[in-house]
Amino acid sequence: MAKRETAMIIYIDTPFKEEQKTLLRSTLKADELIFKDELPSDDERLSSLLKADILLGNPKPVDWLQQAQNLKWLQLYSTGFEYYSGVKIPAVVTNMKAYYAQPCAETIVAGIMALYRGIDKYDTLKSQGRWVGYQAREKLQLLFQKKVIILGAGGIAKHLGNILSGFDCGVTFFARSAGEATLHTIEDLEKAIPDADIIIGTLPGTKETAGLFTTAMINKMNADALFCNIGRGNLVEDEAVLIDALITGKIGGAVLDVTAREPIPEGHPLWDCPNTILTQHSGGGSTTEYDGIAAFFLENLERFKQGNRLKNVVDLAKGY
Amino acid sequence: MAKRETAMIIYIDTPFKEEQKTLLRSTLKADELIFKDELPSDDERLSSLLKADILLGNPKPVDWLQQAQNLKWLQLYSTGFEYYSGVKIPAVVTNMKAYYAQPCAETIVAGIMALYRGIDKYDTLKSQGRWVGYQAREKLQLLFQKKVIILGAGGIAKHLGNILSGFDCGVTFFARSAGEATLHTIEDLEKAIPDADIIIGTLPGTKETAGLFTTAMINKMNADALFCNIGRGNLVEDEAVLIDALITGKIGGAVLDVTAREPIPEGHPLWDCPNTILTQHSGGGSTTEYDGIAAFFLENLERFKQGNRLKNVVDLAKGY
Repeated sequence: MAKRETAMIIYIDTPFKEEQKTLLRSTLKADELIFKDELPSDDERLSSLLKADILLGNPKPVDWLQQAQNLKWLQLYSTGFEYYSGVKIPAVVTNMKAYYAQPCAETIVAGIMALYRGIDKYDTLKSQGRWVGYQAREKLQLLFQKKVIILGAGGIAKHLGNILSGFDCGVTFFARSAGEATLHTIEDLEKAIPDADIIIGTLPGTKETAGLFTTAMINKMNADALFCNIGRGNLVEDEAVLIDALITGKIGGAVLDVTAREPIPEGHPLWDCPNTILTQHSGGGSTTEYDGIAAFFLENLERFKQGNRLKNVVDLAKGY
Repeated sequence: MAKRETAMIIYIDTPFKEEQKTLLRSTLKADELIFKDELPSDDERLSSLLKADILLGNPKPVDWLQQAQNLKWLQLYSTGFEYYSGVKIPAVVTNMKAYYAQPCAETIVAGIMALYRGIDKYDTLKSQGRWVGYQAREKLQLLFQKKVIILGAGGIAKHLGNILSGFDCGVTFFARSAGEATLHTIEDLEKAIPDADIIIGTLPGTKETAGLFTTAMINKMNADALFCNIGRGNLVEDEAVLIDALITGKIGGAVLDVTAREPIPEGHPLWDCPNTILTQHSGGGSTTEYDGIAAFFLENLERFKQGNRLKNVVDLAKGY
């Protein structure tokens, strides 16, 4: 890439607060920064997006993006980008790759430990001001030395592996070809499921992963086993089967950051599933989430201006 | 110790279920087993206790135990035994030592992660069937690389250290002389507190530990820091100060398995403390808790009968 000395028009469609805006404004004095949430109308949003050289964020709708013929670089603020699958733009696209991996891994482990150590039940008792004490002890479980299958071998999977090593868990990865995976085919996975205490989906949303966790697999899970999902909700072939397994106690519980429908609608049966933690697609969140996005963008922008290769380039067609 | 061939009278004051009773009865056919919960009156309980050679459990009241002149061995089912402090009996006393260390460590980490990842708040939202989604993300924190002070260097502290290594935490131990501790005096501890993200009490209940965590220390904690206690409730010099710090947001939160008063009375201000997880002295619990106690007792009983030294001998006067 050639070095770019000219001022850039940067359109920002990311829910930044004043502190991140101030940082960007003070760092990028020569460039024109346009924050979507400061524009009064859709007309102005569209015309600003169309003249932008660079776009930071996940713009909607897709057809606006497809008209952005001036765009040279799109920096997404997410890791996943299946919403843009197949979109053709003349710009390089980058994502946040493993940025959310540690928070996502922590949310899943927090959910598992809450179920195992009764934190959800003690929280309800606290709201009632009610002591049960010893009665509750005999239902508590340990994460120590549990057998865990992780679907996927990317960033979240690696961070989960690090955390679970502190609990001496036996961790097995399912992935087509990744080096650390020992389960490569659907048949391998089906054979391993009956022995697993915990199954954690970390897979991105692609054609190959949609419906990968089948009804047959849910039926093979043991009665104490937990199903967790921090990848994409459409990993589960039929969510109604999962819900039924939770309600009837065919499986031990679930920790779901992602679900077939998001937001989960009012009155949806998931809200009433026992032994289930619903973290509302917050897994990647943290107090420093937007600071980190702004910092990464500035770093990648420096590469862009110097004509160097950008970090985290992805292919919208391939899905990774 | 001499080998004992004669049948023993074993009095059992431990809340076993039928499965553990069956195991003990089938293993110890030659001995006389008396289960306290099967006796109809206090008179029978006292007379059975007084004729026992061996006692498994934590008998109350203390003066019954002091009359048990036939007793040769008392196997407690707990780790702590401050209730028996200074009791004089002619028998060897053993406890469960580090048996509860892993479950206790897991309960504290589960509570910390629940606060950091919002699990308590998502649980409340689930009970209301209410989606907030992204709004909740910016308040979430990470356990990754947090600075942790652990008060104590015994079993729970070691297991906490193992778990926290998976989160790349910086862990510092406070103990008078233990090798892994770097904080030895109250002054060392006071100096370290302002930098800590998490402080975890794991100390047993002795004269030295009562009130060790002072009001001055609470006042030195930073505004995001968590106070956790899995040792004994009387570690905190003045629980009202801790409660005030939680209500006013002077500290970030608390995970309390133990408290000054247990059970926590109805209407007690602890029930209404924000960012607080109360696990009701269940930290040691697990589905296999009583199986493990029965198995350890049988193992130690074999040593007793063979005249070998018992495992986990403690000194009621010294408190360890």
